Amino acid sequence: MQPLWTLRLEQTEVDAATRRADPAAPLAGVPFAIKDNIDLAGHPTTAACPALADTRAKASATAVRLLVEAGAVPVGKTNMDQFATGLVGTRSPYGACHSVASPAHISGGSSSGSAIAVASGLVPLALGTDTAGSGRVPAAFNGIVGVKPTRGLVSTTGVLPACAGVDCVTTLTRTVSAARPALAALTWADPDDPWSRPVPARLPAGIAARMRVVAVPDAPLDLDPEHRTAWAAAVDRLRGLVAHVVPVDITPFLQAATLLYEGPWVAARYAAFGHLLEPDGPHLDPTVRQIVLRGRDIAGPDVFAGLERLATLRRTSEAVWPDVDALLLPVTPGHPRLADVAADPLGVNARLGQFTNFANLLDLCAVAVPAGERPDGLPFGVQFIAPAFADAPLLDLAATWCGEPVSPPPVPPGSTLLAVAG
Amino acid sequence: MQPLWTLRLEQTEVDAATRRADPAAPLAGVPFAIKDNIDLAGHPTTAACPALADTRAKASATAVRLLVEAGAVPVGKTNMDQFATGLVGTRSPYGACHSVASPAHISGGSSSGSAIAVASGLVPLALGTDTAGSGRVPAAFNGIVGVKPTRGLVSTTGVLPACAGVDCVTTLTRTVSAARPALAALTWADPDDPWSRPVPARLPAGIAARMRVVAVPDAPLDLDPEHRTAWAAAVDRLRGLVAHVVPVDITPFLQAATLLYEGPWVAARYAAFGHLLEPDGPHLDPTVRQIVLRGRDIAGPDVFAGLERLATLRRTSEAVWPDVDALLLPVTPGHPRLADVAADPLGVNARLGQFTNFANLLDLCAVAVPAGERPDGLPFGVQFIAPAFADAPLLDLAATWCGEPVSPPPVPPGSTLLAVAG
Repeated sequence: MQPLWTLRLEQTEVDAATRRADPAAPLAGVPFAIKDNIDLAGHPTTAACPALADTRAKASATAVRLLVEAGAVPVGKTNMDQFATGLVGTRSPYGACHSVASPAHISGGSSSGSAIAVASGLVPLALGTDTAGSGRVPAAFNGIVGVKPTRGLVSTTGVLPACAGVDCVTTLTRTVSAARPALAALTWADPDDPWSRPVPARLPAGIAARMRVVAVPDAPLDLDPEHRTAWAAAVDRLRGLVAHVVPVDITPFLQAATLLYEGPWVAARYAAFGHLLEPDGPHLDPTVRQIVLRGRDIAGPDVFAGLERLATLRRTSEAVWPDVDALLLPVTPGHPRLADVAADPLGVNARLGQFTNFANLLDLCAVAVPAGERPDGLPFGVQFIAPAFADAPLLDLAATWCGEPVSPPPVPPGSTLLAVAG
Repeated sequence: MQPLWTLRLEQTEVDAATRRADPAAPLAGVPFAIKDNIDLAGHPTTAACPALADTRAKASATAVRLLVEAGAVPVGKTNMDQFATGLVGTRSPYGACHSVASPAHISGGSSSGSAIAVASGLVPLALGTDTAGSGRVPAAFNGIVGVKPTRGLVSTTGVLPACAGVDCVTTLTRTVSAARPALAALTWADPDDPWSRPVPARLPAGIAARMRVVAVPDAPLDLDPEHRTAWAAAVDRLRGLVAHVVPVDITPFLQAATLLYEGPWVAARYAAFGHLLEPDGPHLDPTVRQIVLRGRDIAGPDVFAGLERLATLRRTSEAVWPDVDALLLPVTPGHPRLADVAADPLGVNARLGQFTNFANLLDLCAVAVPAGERPDGLPFGVQFIAPAFADAPLLDLAATWCGEPVSPPPVPPGSTLLAVAG
């Protein structure tokens, strides 16, 4: 039995909420799971820290409220890497999760319970969060879809921050089509969230309404052998799906990825929840505590130097976008076993994030999608990545990959009469 | 004799450059002064630190290069508050400047020499910088125009940073009209400057092409008596100039202002030039050194907490913009004497910046314009402030204030034929 829930709502409560849902609402009666760093009114938000289990949230997070208003029904809170600090799914006093495909392999995290709840068919929809890859990695390790919208499109009000201003609320679903109505409900400019940003009235200049040119790395990636085989197959498959596959240098992306944990951003985690790390005790995951306490000693001038370094890498990495619509990458370089993580908790996790850590720092959106299986039968996941506010066409590209319907083509302004005449 | 120059070019060099300038260029033969934190090829950039006088810049700053390409001719480098850390004009081993209107009153800074060079008629144009108000304050204290464009519109490549990502290159001129061709030449998206931003193809949503509604504070400001009289006259004058004057609560703007020196941004100064502050010596201004060494000890988590606080204040302050086109404020709360600064170097400076410090942190553009004289005959300056990328209509509002021509009205797309028919 996987420790995927930190809290299950009473069935009577779920049934009552289901009956209350407006049958005409877009998500009427759709049950959903909530990562336990996101508030659900009347229940604790533990972020996998049992010491927080005694306090109940007064209000639901904005994201939860919007799903409920769209008819969806919360069924429980899910286990996670404590304080959303980890990509493994093992850093929790509530127990370590594993992939639905293998009891020996990690579930990925930090949105471990949410991904497992969806992958095992318990719910069709779950909320996760993704700062460094926490939504995409467990999606990949459990063969499902994880959408990480552009920063600020989904409110983080009522979400315990990991790294304020970088955190994103994400969806976990089995299909792209199942994510669409949830994302439509979740996308809202929240005046109470200082990091919220409205969807621009039109796609930003340079963003294609239909993505046809996809970049892949121009040099071999540091992948485990089984992953390498699956990745080669994915690139082959991509060539049959889109008009052009273009090799690009992804070095600046990988350099930006190192900033999140090796650079000054660990200090943002300390700022967000460092006060919860003392005194030590069994309620704290020792690895999470060790990582985040390092953030206390990061110097202010080094933070500004890091912001300058990030600005430079953002500028360098932006050079790829005029030539391509999206970038395809594996979500992770491999799929560790629980034993691997136990043997090297820091090293295994750090390597896992090299293809996901940069997305939020560089202000990109991303969708993790299943890409078949590795030779050993484990699920393999890839991600499509694009600049901020390219969410809609990126979702269509992911749908195309999954063999699902894309959204109707946009009607250019003023073309109605011509379309009728034609 | 004011110590306004740190370097004057040889007259033969100036004459040769004037002859070389393309007579058809927009700034053909216009002499200009350069604040000494901006590189001029072949000459030192001291930032008022004589220890830097032995190193010559290999290339000119992008801003200088663009003015020269537009025909302008550099004539010298100007004195400043050391490392652009100050609003007084007295923090320099090269000597303290004073207002052109009074030897007893400060020139304002940090772009002190540039403002004096323009105000005393030595040059029609000078470059300054403005992080906390360094372009606007000396403009106000010397009765001239100081334009602080939206962050990123003018490249900072080749500018010694005070607070990277917050610094702006500014113009100092006697009229708005004189600033226009310089700003046109300076505005350029620089691929080598990570903080550079292109001018949007159209005005952002919500920015009026003609500004008609101007906000003023809804509560009395903390002004010196002479300033209070001049400010009341300025507000009266505004009522005759624009369609509507609307009182607004400027509390979040004033709160954001305190972050720059009292909050974590001092650590950005330490990151930028802290290595130049040891060992101590007569080449260092003691007040500047004292302020910036404090930045060394600011903790990384406190920087992230400050970024979060700023994001919140940005959100709160944004609430005024849907209702007004621009905000009018005095540039400073008073005009100190040199003796006042000597008696309380930190306190006098901190109070000076309360109306200017917030503009760059909150991503606003601003234009300081003369507003007559105080009862004691000292020049009084006010500033028009607007959201990022509202530079063009804001400049027109400032021109209207100064009784200068505004730019031609924008032609709506597709209206050419109608205009001809009409």
